[in-house]
Amino acid sequence: MTHLPTTRKACAALDLVDPLASFRPRFTLPPGVIYLDGNSLGVLPALTPERLAKVIADEWGQGLIRSWNTAGWVDLPQRLGDKLAPLIGAAAGTTRVCDSTSVNLFKLLAAALALRPGRTVIVSEADNFPTDLYIAEGLAALLGQQHELRLVAADEIEAALDDRVAVLMLSHVNYRTGRLHDMAALTAAAHARGVLTLWDLAHSAGALPMDLSAAQADFAVGCGYKYLNGGPGAPAFLYVAPAHQSRLAAPLSGWFGHARPFAFESHYAPAPGVDRLLVGTPSVLSMAALEVGIDLMAEADLGQVREKSLRMSALFAARVEHELGDVGLVRISPLDDALRGSQVCFTHTQAWPVMQALIARGVIGDVRAPDILRFGFTPLYLSYVQVWDAVTHLAEVLRTREWDAPQFHHRQKVT
Amino acid sequence: MTHLPTTRKACAALDLVDPLASFRPRFTLPPGVIYLDGNSLGVLPALTPERLAKVIADEWGQGLIRSWNTAGWVDLPQRLGDKLAPLIGAAAGTTRVCDSTSVNLFKLLAAALALRPGRTVIVSEADNFPTDLYIAEGLAALLGQQHELRLVAADEIEAALDDRVAVLMLSHVNYRTGRLHDMAALTAAAHARGVLTLWDLAHSAGALPMDLSAAQADFAVGCGYKYLNGGPGAPAFLYVAPAHQSRLAAPLSGWFGHARPFAFESHYAPAPGVDRLLVGTPSVLSMAALEVGIDLMAEADLGQVREKSLRMSALFAARVEHELGDVGLVRISPLDDALRGSQVCFTHTQAWPVMQALIARGVIGDVRAPDILRFGFTPLYLSYVQVWDAVTHLAEVLRTREWDAPQFHHRQKVT
Repeated sequence: MTHLPTTRKACAALDLVDPLASFRPRFTLPPGVIYLDGNSLGVLPALTPERLAKVIADEWGQGLIRSWNTAGWVDLPQRLGDKLAPLIGAAAGTTRVCDSTSVNLFKLLAAALALRPGRTVIVSEADNFPTDLYIAEGLAALLGQQHELRLVAADEIEAALDDRVAVLMLSHVNYRTGRLHDMAALTAAAHARGVLTLWDLAHSAGALPMDLSAAQADFAVGCGYKYLNGGPGAPAFLYVAPAHQSRLAAPLSGWFGHARPFAFESHYAPAPGVDRLLVGTPSVLSMAALEVGIDLMAEADLGQVREKSLRMSALFAARVEHELGDVGLVRISPLDDALRGSQVCFTHTQAWPVMQALIARGVIGDVRAPDILRFGFTPLYLSYVQVWDAVTHLAEVLRTREWDAPQFHHRQKVT
Repeated sequence: MTHLPTTRKACAALDLVDPLASFRPRFTLPPGVIYLDGNSLGVLPALTPERLAKVIADEWGQGLIRSWNTAGWVDLPQRLGDKLAPLIGAAAGTTRVCDSTSVNLFKLLAAALALRPGRTVIVSEADNFPTDLYIAEGLAALLGQQHELRLVAADEIEAALDDRVAVLMLSHVNYRTGRLHDMAALTAAAHARGVLTLWDLAHSAGALPMDLSAAQADFAVGCGYKYLNGGPGAPAFLYVAPAHQSRLAAPLSGWFGHARPFAFESHYAPAPGVDRLLVGTPSVLSMAALEVGIDLMAEADLGQVREKSLRMSALFAARVEHELGDVGLVRISPLDDALRGSQVCFTHTQAWPVMQALIARGVIGDVRAPDILRFGFTPLYLSYVQVWDAVTHLAEVLRTREWDAPQFHHRQKVT
């Protein structure tokens, strides 16, 4: 990334010509906050309160049960899925919004294993997001410990793929280091060995352009509450490549995945295609909030989002290096644009109190155990000046040892 | 049930002395509507819009990621579960709010089967709610078809329990007939044969008093959007008897069910007790709406709710019988109070157009395929006069064949 600004004034100049600047007033941000945690919980779109008020008062309050038809509630998983699909390079009819990321991962991992009978290994990254690993462990236990979860380092993935491997299950962007995998190359390597791929897009959907179709990815899941700004605990999504859809067994075979849910038949018959992966009644209020987030993200040019994101994260990393020198921060995110998602992370022995001191100054990032300071960059509502100022705050916190005050050492339940 | 009113005036007199009358203004109902479908989607509590507006604007919009700690989001499954527990006769620490009813049923059925190795049969009712049967079918398929789903009629349940049966999985109240099972008696019969019980409380939680502890029920699931008024697609709940909690294997082993979710460990370790059955990040907006519904229901005396419900449903059934005679309605709900939930159902060859004609008059019930007219009674916001008037409308629709108009024959996706 060339042309990184080297002064605060240059940052302000960049902000003035930012092609994404018009998105900023379409979000509601607390005054005085520099929010570098949109990779954990996205911010509130300005339209969400009004939309939810309408869903609650009109669709639920007045329409009541009729709104399943008249307000289109029954089609929310399909409608939101088809709106989201272009953001991940997926075709209509491949993507559905439902359940949580963990539950969706369970469905797709179980379905994928069933497509590779005789193969007994699931390969993943040793520091993949824990819930992905836990779900795989739980599924293996449920299936009688016939499968092995083989955890390897990021650079050992290709070498770990052999003809015993059923599924390669990876996060597209690592939640701790921010390292971005090459989805097309790894999928090709997997396919060359008969291995199916299952991608977790939690830290990439809405953060950077991707093309699941072109990469020939088999399966994917992702999160609605990070870069898609769907609200805390927003429903998640799942993707199934067209080739697999008709032969997929849904392990969680609930009525919303039935071919004829309102015929109330006694026996299960899968809905055509990806719809068979729906399970229970969709959570309408949460879905409605997520729809606002998806609609807003769909208006943005993801190429511009990616360009600004890389410039912001490069600026942050460069300035930390330039300003901070030897204050105990060790960068663990790649500087190479091709390998970096939308976050920059550092280890520090005092990560927790350092972050609390930053938060007290209004600079909100988060900590990932045991010692990672994580800073996420969300181009739709962040400015270059804010990125510049965030490093200034970080430098002051570290230089003055502001983090050493007792109030910053109190641990909280959620980090 | 004695003392059924025999005139509209007598209904009005009953309404005047209704001990639950003060609850009615605490719900928002559309003008001109008699809502007999609270067993499918409960109505909007008056406090919900304000509460959700605050969660969205303040907790999400201003608090952002900090609200996981400061607004107690992280404890929502526990807080709501412990508030709900008294409504089902459960102790604190046994009940959690999470996921959908279907997903929760999958978890508990899988966990229950694992507690009965060697036993291969799941017994259920042939006309249990379909998603329960579908989930059991899907789980059996996932586990390699080692289990058989044995479906029997309501009167044959006890006889179907033998030493091959692992789990008796029943809905407490049948969604079509409204027939109520004797939870304590069936659980005792099951236990006498070494069988575990899994109850679906979708049509009973919040509708009638029950005592899961005294009945020694092993497992239960239930729905947040019917009698608990949690909103469309509200999160569901699950219950695990204390004796089973520590030896339960969670088949959907997500990070919210981990002993230390924010330690981000690579390997799964179950949380103590029922918390291990949590999976993904809780859906905060939907949870917040459900909390209002639970809080409101928790203020009501369920004994009074039950008494009024039985009187309303008996009044409805008696008046249909008295007023309507031979117009093709066949009652399929029991008249015996001990056997009736909170609904009255009839078959009619023209069930669909009859219901559409009723809805056009503002009397909202629903249809269950192929030919059931279903009317639910929710004592917190219905009056006896409304029940009386509903039958008047039904009589007019049937006597004048109003339902025969073409516009009432158009089928909709959701019934």
